[in-house]
Amino acid sequence: MENKEISQAVIGRLPRYFRYLGELKDEGIERISSQELSDIMQVTASQIRQDFNNFGGFGQQGYGYKVEYLYEEIGKILGLDKTHNLIIIGAGNLGQALANYMNFERRGFLFKGIFDNNPALFGKKIRNMEIKPMEEMEAFVKENGIDIAVLTIPKGSAVEVAGKLVENGIRGIWNFAHVDLPVPAEIQVENVHLSDSLMKLAYNINRYEQNEL
Amino acid sequence: MENKEISQAVIGRLPRYFRYLGELKDEGIERISSQELSDIMQVTASQIRQDFNNFGGFGQQGYGYKVEYLYEEIGKILGLDKTHNLIIIGAGNLGQALANYMNFERRGFLFKGIFDNNPALFGKKIRNMEIKPMEEMEAFVKENGIDIAVLTIPKGSAVEVAGKLVENGIRGIWNFAHVDLPVPAEIQVENVHLSDSLMKLAYNINRYEQNEL
Repeated sequence: MENKEISQAVIGRLPRYFRYLGELKDEGIERISSQELSDIMQVTASQIRQDFNNFGGFGQQGYGYKVEYLYEEIGKILGLDKTHNLIIIGAGNLGQALANYMNFERRGFLFKGIFDNNPALFGKKIRNMEIKPMEEMEAFVKENGIDIAVLTIPKGSAVEVAGKLVENGIRGIWNFAHVDLPVPAEIQVENVHLSDSLMKLAYNINRYEQNEL
Repeated sequence: MENKEISQAVIGRLPRYFRYLGELKDEGIERISSQELSDIMQVTASQIRQDFNNFGGFGQQGYGYKVEYLYEEIGKILGLDKTHNLIIIGAGNLGQALANYMNFERRGFLFKGIFDNNPALFGKKIRNMEIKPMEEMEAFVKENGIDIAVLTIPKGSAVEVAGKLVENGIRGIWNFAHVDLPVPAEIQVENVHLSDSLMKLAYNINRYEQNEL
């Protein structure tokens, strides 16, 4: 299992399975069939079985899946049993919103610091963490074993900041800046291009209306 | 062209083309070959040609693409030449961050109102717009021809609010709540599940490290 290549499409679906299984677990449900899971998730039962087969199955014919076991196993596959040290670059509304998602801690993402280049923000506290000047970022990343940086800064400075993060040992960037980051292949980047997402929504609305006419 | 079905994969790539072409336009570049566009976008030239062929081409052999024309045509395909009336439900940090993305206006998304159920926020102004109580949302949607709602509220209330929006004529929901919304097929939903995205990043970091060992 360790070295089998799993497609990004399957990986992209795992967090959603994880989310639904977590809800079932919280509701006290112990066992679920692929058909029931299919009904609540609006995914075909065969898709679910195929996805889970990538990781060796998890189920027994006619018995269904054990919710808690499956939740934990998918969590392990996602690496949520490990911890990651995370900093946020940019303490504007979006940076503050992300810092306040307490939920991240539950999944192993440890919020270690937040940086900005606006002196008016220095020393202000977000979740008990003082906003620090950008000048301190590089040393902080190196000295505190930070492996994930969240970029919520304008695109003009994002590429330069990403370069500094990479030099200081960052492993992954969660990028909200409206620009694609040219980083080495060993650095994992997950882009959240919000305006792209909104444009896709607009397209689908218009498309639907054109087809209705 | 109007009724040809285009895959969601192609549609998903259009906003990124639009973003790059907009930057080229802003830099005063008038013409670009698919090879040059391929180099800056890190997409194969053949992929670019294939994608554009879905919409009738846009290019001339050996001449390349006219940047401004292409930018405008893709904008039209995305429906950015039309305007959409948009409200934000939830005036927390994330709702405020989204309200402050002035850029949306440039793309035809007109910010018409922001709602919350926290009385402490009523009357406070976000981009010159007073935060209104949730109780006023339904009438407001109906009376102001609101077609897009942005949901930045906790998952507990998101499903109920989505139902009310649909009843009052909303056409699309940009959903940041951590829950999938059960809405009729004619309502377009674009989900931004931030924790799913962060989990995917964690997976890719762990995967890379396991393969390195």
